[in-house]
Amino acid sequence: MKPLTTFVAAIFLATCPTFAAEPLPSWNDTAPKQAIIAFVEKTTKEGSPDFVPISERIAVFDNDGTLWAEQPMYFQLFFALDRVKALAPQHPEWKDKEPFASLLKGDVKAALAGGERALAQIVMATHAGLTTEEFEKVVTDWISTAKHPKTGKPFTEMVYQPMLELLTYLRANNFKTFIVSGGGIEFMRPWTEKVYDIPPEQVIGSSIKTKFELRDGTPVLARLPELNFIDDKEGKPVAIQQHIGRRPIMAFGNSDGDFQMLEWTTTGKGPRFALIVHHDDAQREYAYDRGSHIGKLEKGLDEAPQRGWSIISMKNDWKNIYP
Amino acid sequence: MKPLTTFVAAIFLATCPTFAAEPLPSWNDTAPKQAIIAFVEKTTKEGSPDFVPISERIAVFDNDGTLWAEQPMYFQLFFALDRVKALAPQHPEWKDKEPFASLLKGDVKAALAGGERALAQIVMATHAGLTTEEFEKVVTDWISTAKHPKTGKPFTEMVYQPMLELLTYLRANNFKTFIVSGGGIEFMRPWTEKVYDIPPEQVIGSSIKTKFELRDGTPVLARLPELNFIDDKEGKPVAIQQHIGRRPIMAFGNSDGDFQMLEWTTTGKGPRFALIVHHDDAQREYAYDRGSHIGKLEKGLDEAPQRGWSIISMKNDWKNIYP
Repeated sequence: MKPLTTFVAAIFLATCPTFAAEPLPSWNDTAPKQAIIAFVEKTTKEGSPDFVPISERIAVFDNDGTLWAEQPMYFQLFFALDRVKALAPQHPEWKDKEPFASLLKGDVKAALAGGERALAQIVMATHAGLTTEEFEKVVTDWISTAKHPKTGKPFTEMVYQPMLELLTYLRANNFKTFIVSGGGIEFMRPWTEKVYDIPPEQVIGSSIKTKFELRDGTPVLARLPELNFIDDKEGKPVAIQQHIGRRPIMAFGNSDGDFQMLEWTTTGKGPRFALIVHHDDAQREYAYDRGSHIGKLEKGLDEAPQRGWSIISMKNDWKNIYP
Repeated sequence: MKPLTTFVAAIFLATCPTFAAEPLPSWNDTAPKQAIIAFVEKTTKEGSPDFVPISERIAVFDNDGTLWAEQPMYFQLFFALDRVKALAPQHPEWKDKEPFASLLKGDVKAALAGGERALAQIVMATHAGLTTEEFEKVVTDWISTAKHPKTGKPFTEMVYQPMLELLTYLRANNFKTFIVSGGGIEFMRPWTEKVYDIPPEQVIGSSIKTKFELRDGTPVLARLPELNFIDDKEGKPVAIQQHIGRRPIMAFGNSDGDFQMLEWTTTGKGPRFALIVHHDDAQREYAYDRGSHIGKLEKGLDEAPQRGWSIISMKNDWKNIYP
């Protein structure tokens, strides 16, 4: 091609990536894929009665179980357990103190038998006490080396290839993509930009309090052992309003912890879309829903049809699971 | 021009707006303007030792006194006072109850004599009790009709023209612009996109708590009479981390309430920039600093030179104040 033509073509491809290839190649051509594409086309076509201006094209995604896997337990818990081991030499008292004693013996089940209180103790002991910059480094170091116990893959390779394609497809159509997760906001931010192309300012999650203080004249944000916000269930719409300030038009989740986020998204005016990832693929991933203690999905399964929410069968609707 | 040339030119102008005109036309060619342009050029030039990737080009702006005026009192207080009058018929008890009794008599000074407690009572009475969508409508209606008592202008026309140009200039250079204000986050969001081209998700401010609930089966976010966060002084770096998740490289403020935001911004690694708007123009705007009970600027004035922060004299550095 002549240089000018090449230049025009390059710009055209750069600004109109949806023309570059068929979208969502890892999705089978079943109802969920068709529903996504139909929704994107009608909301982005100028003159369509369902056209949505670019600034209002907000799409929110749960993380655990929606963008990456969450079995046999939330990946952030693996991080916490590794932190307990790493910090144990500084805490000789943990040898006789639950839930740490059980954890150090490798008995996760016994450690978590203490319920929410035990979990809170583990999170505070492993997530607080550092500055925000120190914590970021700890997470970055961990995520670059830790491996999943079953697959042996790095956790960041246990993201769902079809969802990566969906994120790319939506952004190519000028949707702004946000994570709205029950996971720790500062646990996700160090790697979401690299893995999902979602920058830190578009990551919303649970948090502990921080405090601005001067240490030897240098300002730091110290992470305190005090809960700030739980971004789950009714907390998700609250956090969406706090961070984004408007109602999304698309929402993606996988468990009943996402129910209110999908409900909030789909009860606004104008075109709305919600989708639930159903983990029904025991062979390629995991199969769980109603009975699961992680990622329990019951209300969402029951109400999705009457609410017009799509359900993905990982087994039937996805060609591939991981990249 | 031939159609193809026109097309190329249109794309070129659309993607390279910094070439379109001289930046910051309402700024005199004095040190602050030169410093801003030098900083933007060195951080955006590929190959420069100070080059900053686009994703890290975060610029934060205080609102009251930095992007729009704040005298004789914060504009949000005018809103609160008008709300007290509008709500008074539903609250006959206010006639004998401070701070409302004084407010209804038009004696703002007496009403505010009760200090922070009186202020909190006014804010809770006027900002809570509605859903987020109802409150948005109240703010939108008020801001479209209310006028400043001295200038007679709508409050949204008391924004600073040089700062509008600065926002545009920075965005044209792929900076992401955020508001980080002590003002109410939901008081600003209904109009910041129209006035500053800053979308709701890039507005950070003080907030009250909200609660997700179903009313006749319809989900709402109810605004509660309970403080959530004060986005001032040490709160600003905390809120920046919570919302943005990384340290800005440019910060703009006007009062000591912005000091920690500027300090946090400028003590990070790599190129950093901070600027203080000094209100020294009694003729065209207002003149106040050390002694002022609104927008007090003392520590910032004292420390700016040694910290390398720029100071704008509104009188000497700006050709125009309002659009």
